[in-house]
Amino acid sequence: MTLESPVQDSLAARLTQRLGPRGVLLQAAERAPYEASARHAGGRARGVLRPADAQELAWTLKELVTAGAHVVTQGAATGLVGGATPTTDGSQWVLSTQRLRDVLSIDPVNRSATVAAGFRLSELNRAAAEHGLSLPIDLGADPTLGGMVATNTGGARLIRFGGARENLLGVEAVLAHPAGQRVGSSRALRKNNTGLDWAQLLCGTFGAFGVVTRATVRLHSIQQQSATALVAVDSVEAAIEMVCDLEQAMGEFVSAFEGLSRGALQAVARHQGGVLPFADVPAYAVLMEVSSAVPPGCGLDLEAMLMAWLEQHLAQGRIVDAVIDKPAQLWRIRHAISEAVQSLGRMVAFDLSVARSAFAPFRARALSLIDELLPAASVCDFGHLGDGGVHLNMVVPQDTPADAIGRLRDAIYDAVVREFGGSFSAEHGVGPYNQAYYHRCSEPAMQAMAGVLQRQLDTARVLGNVWLGEAGI
Amino acid sequence: MTLESPVQDSLAARLTQRLGPRGVLLQAAERAPYEASARHAGGRARGVLRPADAQELAWTLKELVTAGAHVVTQGAATGLVGGATPTTDGSQWVLSTQRLRDVLSIDPVNRSATVAAGFRLSELNRAAAEHGLSLPIDLGADPTLGGMVATNTGGARLIRFGGARENLLGVEAVLAHPAGQRVGSSRALRKNNTGLDWAQLLCGTFGAFGVVTRATVRLHSIQQQSATALVAVDSVEAAIEMVCDLEQAMGEFVSAFEGLSRGALQAVARHQGGVLPFADVPAYAVLMEVSSAVPPGCGLDLEAMLMAWLEQHLAQGRIVDAVIDKPAQLWRIRHAISEAVQSLGRMVAFDLSVARSAFAPFRARALSLIDELLPAASVCDFGHLGDGGVHLNMVVPQDTPADAIGRLRDAIYDAVVREFGGSFSAEHGVGPYNQAYYHRCSEPAMQAMAGVLQRQLDTARVLGNVWLGEAGI
Repeated sequence: MTLESPVQDSLAARLTQRLGPRGVLLQAAERAPYEASARHAGGRARGVLRPADAQELAWTLKELVTAGAHVVTQGAATGLVGGATPTTDGSQWVLSTQRLRDVLSIDPVNRSATVAAGFRLSELNRAAAEHGLSLPIDLGADPTLGGMVATNTGGARLIRFGGARENLLGVEAVLAHPAGQRVGSSRALRKNNTGLDWAQLLCGTFGAFGVVTRATVRLHSIQQQSATALVAVDSVEAAIEMVCDLEQAMGEFVSAFEGLSRGALQAVARHQGGVLPFADVPAYAVLMEVSSAVPPGCGLDLEAMLMAWLEQHLAQGRIVDAVIDKPAQLWRIRHAISEAVQSLGRMVAFDLSVARSAFAPFRARALSLIDELLPAASVCDFGHLGDGGVHLNMVVPQDTPADAIGRLRDAIYDAVVREFGGSFSAEHGVGPYNQAYYHRCSEPAMQAMAGVLQRQLDTARVLGNVWLGEAGI
Repeated sequence: MTLESPVQDSLAARLTQRLGPRGVLLQAAERAPYEASARHAGGRARGVLRPADAQELAWTLKELVTAGAHVVTQGAATGLVGGATPTTDGSQWVLSTQRLRDVLSIDPVNRSATVAAGFRLSELNRAAAEHGLSLPIDLGADPTLGGMVATNTGGARLIRFGGARENLLGVEAVLAHPAGQRVGSSRALRKNNTGLDWAQLLCGTFGAFGVVTRATVRLHSIQQQSATALVAVDSVEAAIEMVCDLEQAMGEFVSAFEGLSRGALQAVARHQGGVLPFADVPAYAVLMEVSSAVPPGCGLDLEAMLMAWLEQHLAQGRIVDAVIDKPAQLWRIRHAISEAVQSLGRMVAFDLSVARSAFAPFRARALSLIDELLPAASVCDFGHLGDGGVHLNMVVPQDTPADAIGRLRDAIYDAVVREFGGSFSAEHGVGPYNQAYYHRCSEPAMQAMAGVLQRQLDTARVLGNVWLGEAGI
């Protein structure tokens, strides 16, 4: 059957009749924005479907399943593992949730929000801010709520507020089997212990189990004061010791603890000039943030507390240097890393995590693997050190052969998962770009179980571009 | 086949041969402690099996499945819905996880613990305390870690620290199908976004999907200061307004916000004499606690902050009276309620939750239903008001017919679930005592899905005494 076969054309006609011209985009120029990928090469879609609400989406999915079509769900397409990008062969429909915008409802008394899948995080937070509330998931992108649930977004403030999973109270979704079946609930309950938690099943399974149409999330008080410091230390070990100390002294206030390697700092310095506040680039640095919902002048002065803590550590020689500055100034350095590293040449990126206690030995092992397998690489690692996450990114010569990069990737994934009990995907998730490593690194019994679920919930294998079951089955 | 048939006897012999006399308890006197139930009538077990480790447990479960035996998993049997109690017909084996005690390992740098299923919460917390850490799930019982995962325990400090689900990093378990298959992981990762979260599937499904053998949980700093107040208000509405105000002013410090109705306060006063610090029993009272991991003398004085906040509210006439006292004094009142209510006569208990914004209207509706259907009942409700939970307990005359109580229960469950979007089981979970209401109140599509999973993971229907699928299927 060719792509333009009569069967597909009659499907397109039926879809257009129900969804209207705004709901079905078939021309290349219209499709193009939905075919791009945030980090990798784009794909090609059979067409883009934009149902206007959950009911239309359910109808659409039923039609697609009945026709044996294939579909990839897409929110804002900001993910970094290709989970929302159609394949390159033009066989998949993109099912966009962008127009699911019928509900954005804040319950300030309950500190929760119920949000249609198509709203962006920034839109939710603008509405929540009117009530002094926020969903404090802090990432480099502005995903839709549907995408956040499907990919279980993490970010820089997970150490304090949790990620998508921890803030999810309820999810509504549409299933591929039974085709178009609507399930789930928007009950905004913090306590509801009545069996299988359907929201948790849909969170972080990348659309393979169903299409998220609505999410209910908990909200937190907007922080009324914060203090941020960039601290230079002489080793990763010292940084790990520091996070324990800081949590002991500042407890619940710690809202970010980001690690910045010498390589990452050098990249920023080179890319942005005199932005670093240190005379010499230190061996390692940490961006620490403490914050509170308690307004200043009510008996809590976090800047004074952090200052005292840093002075004590400086006096004890446990840190090399420290700068307290406006948060925006210091976060700018952290946020500049990704672009700075990419500006240096060809970037190879990793998104790993280990227990904090394993961080220093794992990093040493990874550096020695890089030294052995790709000695020309320049490592610029950084990440969410407080929660054990590390983006072990590096710049490699443009002409580095793909198989050399592949060998290094294999070795590092094996080390992090098998030697150090870590994860090959800390926060970006499993998409086509991690599929092979998922099969290789995840527990076989769990893959088997996930496959059973996926076959059950998507009998015709219509949804998405990841397969959570065992490889080749 | 009778209970003492040769097939069963040969099973008992095989089990005894492998597990030894400590591992197989067949005599009535030995079985008795495992047949009791914390709140309801006990059951009768075919025998009690106490494997010494996960490997023995896996072997045991395989034997049981092969023999077509039935089994109910039991930790400390402290649950309130009968989930760990064998049926009364003597057909079920109790599979005790008490002897799974091979690992209790604290990682202070990672702030996590990996714990074999048989350890009690208090044992974990004693070990964690040596590192200044704690799993701050606060309940009236001392469950095992395995039981906490299976029942997704909540408690009084969920508002601040979350319950079992939010603190769970990993779970190891044994499946009934494939029989004796060990799955899961103890990786102590805060970020691990690699597909289906197996731990979340086992949490709160009451042993129906597998037997938990080990859990990895996050730990929190032990609180170094706290301030507690008992506050009298003139209505439930005022209490709800107060929790919003308190969270606005005290943000992340709020660690408990418990509601105590006039009936509950009267019960305590009658049961314990002059324990109430108020001259008159108020219409409603709140026990509020703020706490911090920051030690006193480091720039934070929570008692002073709470005092100032209460004075302001007193001056504004928004609260009737307030007492700041030693936490133990005030918590004693809260903890006395359950026993005090039971001492007044025959107790009928509910474990409900709603969004906080629906709390006052739901309570009014419930009181009017009680007035209509069981006017002789004396309501003594209390609960975790901060997270929307309410134990709508009442005392009824000893001779109240069971069907009158049943009609009231039906009406209240319908109201909370259908009119107010709440839950019929906020934290106690689904056990035999909630089974009928599970079928009646839970979404049919979700029950269907849970049934598919349960059939897949327990093909022979060997495990536990709850059925999460649709009724009658």
